[in-house]
Amino acid sequence: MVESPLKDPAAAPMQGDEGAPEAWLVFDAGVTDALHGLAAGDELLVFTWLDRARRDVLQVHPRDDRSRPEQGVFATRSQDRPNPIGLHRVTVLAIDGLRFRVRDLEAVDGTPIVDVKPPLRRAGER
Amino acid sequence: MVESPLKDPAAAPMQGDEGAPEAWLVFDAGVTDALHGLAAGDELLVFTWLDRARRDVLQVHPRDDRSRPEQGVFATRSQDRPNPIGLHRVTVLAIDGLRFRVRDLEAVDGTPIVDVKPPLRRAGER
Repeated sequence: MVESPLKDPAAAPMQGDEGAPEAWLVFDAGVTDALHGLAAGDELLVFTWLDRARRDVLQVHPRDDRSRPEQGVFATRSQDRPNPIGLHRVTVLAIDGLRFRVRDLEAVDGTPIVDVKPPLRRAGER
Repeated sequence: MVESPLKDPAAAPMQGDEGAPEAWLVFDAGVTDALHGLAAGDELLVFTWLDRARRDVLQVHPRDDRSRPEQGVFATRSQDRPNPIGLHRVTVLAIDGLRFRVRDLEAVDGTPIVDVKPPLRRAGER
């Protein structure tokens, strides 16, 4: 689960590098072994379930800019979409057991975390 | 849903740029409006549910290389993980209604698609 000072989806930045405050990833004890090998300084892809998004919205104005024509949500990064999975690229600042302090996470407080992966490195460095 | 000549997870390439054959993304008619604005030539992030993965595996040898020490699955791109969400970066080759022909997709035939997003562009180009 995400712990963040961000409480209001409408006030959150649209992307993590647009002014998101530091936040925590808080994992369940049941996945302790799955965290082995992660360290401060790592970049991670965090997958969330955007539980406050609307699932019945299929078209939006990109970046909420009404001067831009509506597009299908699959052509945008809108939170509103049939399966609202969030993808966030964050940097780990510190690890305290099951709590990871991270930078660049725009998800609001209480958002469930569903998966974590490292970014894919170049072929040859895998 | 993915339509692909790849049938056997054990024989599929580990990543899409490691020899995956061309494949199709086949969407449900209910999300037709959400596809508006996508075009041949686009790069897309495709999210799948890896329904043949194991959800009880928490540690693996990276890239199935037993000479490498076991790591937590969250530090690897293993398909086996508590919530087996696949992330695939593909290029759209052609669109035929609800069917998108794509390059670099290593998911096997029949894998459910759960979301599609464009890659995030640099700040300033959003």
